[in-house]
Amino acid sequence: MSSVGTTPVAATAMGAATGDATASATRITPGNALRPEDIAAKVAAGSVAISEDVANYALRLGDDALILAQRLGWWVSRAPELEEDIALSNIALDLLGHARSFLSYAGGGWGKTEDDLAYFRGEDEFRSVHLVEQPNGDFARTIARQLVVSTFQHLLYSRLVDSQDATLAAISAKALKEVDYHQDHAHQWVLRLALGTQESRRRMVNGLDLTWPYIAELFDDDELIERLEGIAVRPSSLRVQYDSRITQILAEAELDVQEVPPAAGGGRSGRHSEYLGHILAEMQVLAREHPGATW
Amino acid sequence: MSSVGTTPVAATAMGAATGDATASATRITPGNALRPEDIAAKVAAGSVAISEDVANYALRLGDDALILAQRLGWWVSRAPELEEDIALSNIALDLLGHARSFLSYAGGGWGKTEDDLAYFRGEDEFRSVHLVEQPNGDFARTIARQLVVSTFQHLLYSRLVDSQDATLAAISAKALKEVDYHQDHAHQWVLRLALGTQESRRRMVNGLDLTWPYIAELFDDDELIERLEGIAVRPSSLRVQYDSRITQILAEAELDVQEVPPAAGGGRSGRHSEYLGHILAEMQVLAREHPGATW
Repeated sequence: MSSVGTTPVAATAMGAATGDATASATRITPGNALRPEDIAAKVAAGSVAISEDVANYALRLGDDALILAQRLGWWVSRAPELEEDIALSNIALDLLGHARSFLSYAGGGWGKTEDDLAYFRGEDEFRSVHLVEQPNGDFARTIARQLVVSTFQHLLYSRLVDSQDATLAAISAKALKEVDYHQDHAHQWVLRLALGTQESRRRMVNGLDLTWPYIAELFDDDELIERLEGIAVRPSSLRVQYDSRITQILAEAELDVQEVPPAAGGGRSGRHSEYLGHILAEMQVLAREHPGATW
Repeated sequence: MSSVGTTPVAATAMGAATGDATASATRITPGNALRPEDIAAKVAAGSVAISEDVANYALRLGDDALILAQRLGWWVSRAPELEEDIALSNIALDLLGHARSFLSYAGGGWGKTEDDLAYFRGEDEFRSVHLVEQPNGDFARTIARQLVVSTFQHLLYSRLVDSQDATLAAISAKALKEVDYHQDHAHQWVLRLALGTQESRRRMVNGLDLTWPYIAELFDDDELIERLEGIAVRPSSLRVQYDSRITQILAEAELDVQEVPPAAGGGRSGRHSEYLGHILAEMQVLAREHPGATW
């Protein structure tokens, strides 16, 4: 990856052919509108080509964001403060936005729409990691999950903006700004809970303990990643920076990093915990009852 | 109300004493930030006075928005399209924002915060109408409820911007811009469903039929409204315009307005259907488990 892209957050435009960023005549300023509809239109018009491998990679990125958005959406009426209700809902909406873009792009590989991919895939066709399907638990457990995911995604998108795939780079550039806020939100809450009352500290510790086993899967490389050299980011290459950031935050919160055995994993190959089935049942019921749009 | 405010959407600033808009030295441009935190701070500092009557009126406005936001929040992971998921979630967030502002202001009447009012009142202390606590049903029923509420709120806030109470006027000015979008959203969906397939039309008709009995309560005047002449908007005074707008939309959708007997009502006096208890149970559980903020 490091050989591509000389400016720190330079996303090459979607008009560029996949895998050839230098062919781009225009550049999208990070943060500018990059709507899923635009992606879908360009894919449909054939002005953006997408290989099966890239489609599968985009699917992973989209599924992580989609499933986490569903989990966070649960908090809409249940956060401990009205202000926090709004904060978590906004984070869920950001993630849904990222999911829509990645899934619109992925769909181009198989002639499918974002809605086809969200609503008409079976559990074993989802490519998200186990971490994002973990239960919300109490507020502290949700914050622990947010800390890990947002730190990981921030590092990932920071590198994906230099991908040779111009569309992945552009989506990541837009997502990066939002994930930066998500990371800060989780960071501040970890401090507030860990350094708050005895009870809040106990819950924060417990939330992190429940989260640690699901971290290892985030950093697994596999054959798809090998084939996408220069396009995908190698997850294992993010681990050192990730550990350094988390260690720093936990030190501020006067907490220790625990060494725990990793959970089973397998999400990238479609092996999921029982939780995903429940999430999908809720998410897909309406679309499946009345296939072909809204009745 | 018509004697106050000569500009169409002029909201007088919060610094003005209640009931004396002309004393204001500054004016808030509608849509500018008016955060619940600012309202709470001004109330706490004593720079905004609020009478018990005005507090009770703000409570009604806030409760309608709060309970509807909770209902709409349910759709976060359940809309028929990812794009619609985001639209409904955004509407829920707008309403939560309005609720926070009105409840922050109302709380000033009793030395309470928005969170006190949202999480620590019993069912019989809520002042919302029955319409907003009605079940989501299918998507068409939710859209029917949105059509009625957003049309009503649009008319209400259009008039409240001229209230002699500067804070109510300022909150309404900000809310008005958002409710304008909500109304358009509901309008477009009513057309799409009513003029779509046979099945979508059947569902739209059914959704509206279930909604009609709860409309009458929106327009009920009572003693509080009488006492707040010039500050509150008399609900009955909005009825003609409301009927005219709805009739026009239904005509576009080739639907008839049905004359139905009104449901019991009583929400403004704290008499609610069984639905509110369930909504509150979900909404209040976390805050009540750990009173005094986040553990």
